[in-house]
Amino acid sequence: MLGDAGLYAPHLGSRRAALITNEVVAPLYLSRIERALAQAGAAVTPIIVADGEQAKDWKTLEQVFDQLLAARCGRDTVIVALGGGVIGDLAGFAAAVYQRGVPFIQLPTTLLAQVDSSVGGKTAINHARGKNMVGAFHQPLAVIADVATLDSLPDRELRAGVAEVIKHALVLDPAFVDWLEANLARLLARDRPTLEYAVRRSCELKAGVVAADEREAGRRAILNFGHTFGHAIETGVGYGEWLHGEAVAAGMVMAAELSVRAGLLTRADAERVRMLVARAGLPAAGPVLSPERMVELMQVDKKASGGRVRFVLLTAIGQAVLRGDIDVQMVQDVIASSTAVATPAATR
Amino acid sequence: MLGDAGLYAPHLGSRRAALITNEVVAPLYLSRIERALAQAGAAVTPIIVADGEQAKDWKTLEQVFDQLLAARCGRDTVIVALGGGVIGDLAGFAAAVYQRGVPFIQLPTTLLAQVDSSVGGKTAINHARGKNMVGAFHQPLAVIADVATLDSLPDRELRAGVAEVIKHALVLDPAFVDWLEANLARLLARDRPTLEYAVRRSCELKAGVVAADEREAGRRAILNFGHTFGHAIETGVGYGEWLHGEAVAAGMVMAAELSVRAGLLTRADAERVRMLVARAGLPAAGPVLSPERMVELMQVDKKASGGRVRFVLLTAIGQAVLRGDIDVQMVQDVIASSTAVATPAATR
Repeated sequence: MLGDAGLYAPHLGSRRAALITNEVVAPLYLSRIERALAQAGAAVTPIIVADGEQAKDWKTLEQVFDQLLAARCGRDTVIVALGGGVIGDLAGFAAAVYQRGVPFIQLPTTLLAQVDSSVGGKTAINHARGKNMVGAFHQPLAVIADVATLDSLPDRELRAGVAEVIKHALVLDPAFVDWLEANLARLLARDRPTLEYAVRRSCELKAGVVAADEREAGRRAILNFGHTFGHAIETGVGYGEWLHGEAVAAGMVMAAELSVRAGLLTRADAERVRMLVARAGLPAAGPVLSPERMVELMQVDKKASGGRVRFVLLTAIGQAVLRGDIDVQMVQDVIASSTAVATPAATR
Repeated sequence: MLGDAGLYAPHLGSRRAALITNEVVAPLYLSRIERALAQAGAAVTPIIVADGEQAKDWKTLEQVFDQLLAARCGRDTVIVALGGGVIGDLAGFAAAVYQRGVPFIQLPTTLLAQVDSSVGGKTAINHARGKNMVGAFHQPLAVIADVATLDSLPDRELRAGVAEVIKHALVLDPAFVDWLEANLARLLARDRPTLEYAVRRSCELKAGVVAADEREAGRRAILNFGHTFGHAIETGVGYGEWLHGEAVAAGMVMAAELSVRAGLLTRADAERVRMLVARAGLPAAGPVLSPERMVELMQVDKKASGGRVRFVLLTAIGQAVLRGDIDVQMVQDVIASSTAVATPAATR
């Protein structure tokens, strides 16, 4: 499907494309998509960056700008992001600021990118002091997701993508939670119709929220369920040790526990969250980090407002609220009761 | 005026401000404005960067992000840009991408910034391969211009600002050209009512164009009169050798000459442009750069479209058009006939 020129033609008015991918994805799909873009009438500049979260930095971005300028790509160039969440965020941010903004297309090749990061227009790079600290809202012209690309995805990354599927279900759609509980084994076995449904339903749910609140002035923030804890985990252990989805998974279990302690959720529902995460082969507890350090990391998170940390909490399975009035001690208690596992890579 | 807390209070809902300026402006105005912001109820984080066009780079931007993060400035922080065009562009771009965008206020302290760069929302940093190559459209909440700050401005920079005033008049308002011809001496002598009128009229003219075409899809491009030549001059001689306004001044004379050769403008009107530029003490000819090199630099300019260079040409005094069909040879002839002066700093 990704090799179909007809998918790209409607978005290439300019006849100029820069195809940004990494050294792992390039051997798998680059030539096929380059050919399709050429068939669609575009002159293509391929740009290959390093693999991994470390590439989401200014140094890599500078390399991208350098190659775009060397190839004399003008403001009419369409940037095509081919890869996972890191490539989507990096190439998307490059598109947001190159010559004050050029259009871009997302071709997500990981489950995480297909169900979450490619949709909604959030782009960013990391800063030594925090994840996604420099970025922009920049909507893609199109997101083209082909679940066939997931065949080559390592199991650990597949599960990390499932974490965001679970997240969308938990904050927005109780029926989708039921479906996940019933179809989790098929999903993890990469049954194609099951994957397709999970990707489609996740995108529908996310797009609905983003359309109503693109810039996250309010409601969109519920999509950050598990992310306040999750980002603190990622920063605390160092980028790349935990996958984003793994950190979010542990973060969702902590956020559910916090919801119980805040009197919003039943213990049984929090246990349902923990079970679903654990059954997906995802960490249901955080790494060895002190509660004080975790809270400190949360306070510099983008979602902190006037120094106060905001949490997305569940009021039921499939229903969430944003709360900025949670007691720090309660948060530390949740972390203290949860901190337990080594890095997911080491435990599996 | 800049010390008046009432000017800031309406824009500081968040009670958190980061005041970005450089080491030359800081001793003149920083404490006064810090006090006013504090009176308006804001906690202020002052950030002082190096002076000069060299500071419009990623390294300086990283220092800004570092200090914002160290001070735990959240998404609710208002960035205040205090200084000339470089500070406005840099701090504005920092505001555009810090945590995916925070609000900002412009306090321009040079004539160039007051009449041009602070209005319209264009922000950017430079890249080794070209000026303003990385940036964003990000509108300020407010632009607060006090011509009293121009008292301390070096003569050379005052004239560079006058170049942009002349530009607005030439492309938009024949009566303003008449006024400039009659009031140039008073303007250069810093007569305050004359300065106030020039700043006000320039902002009105620019704001009218920007409001109709914020993202420069069409009409806004006429504000780039003199800039295709001008940017090539700046890049060709190295940033900082020529002031932006000086390069634009020489560029306007070249663009007027090109307009004559393209059959759009009378020789007498082109001479009127040259005279006005020369009377303002601005360079009416370019530096010693080969026509081939100049054209090459133009082709990597943001304003190039599909490799073609676009020029803003005059059809009369006070009236401009955008043209993408100008023959390269004609452009080289104009440059060859004009290349003549050393750097403006050295000639005066």
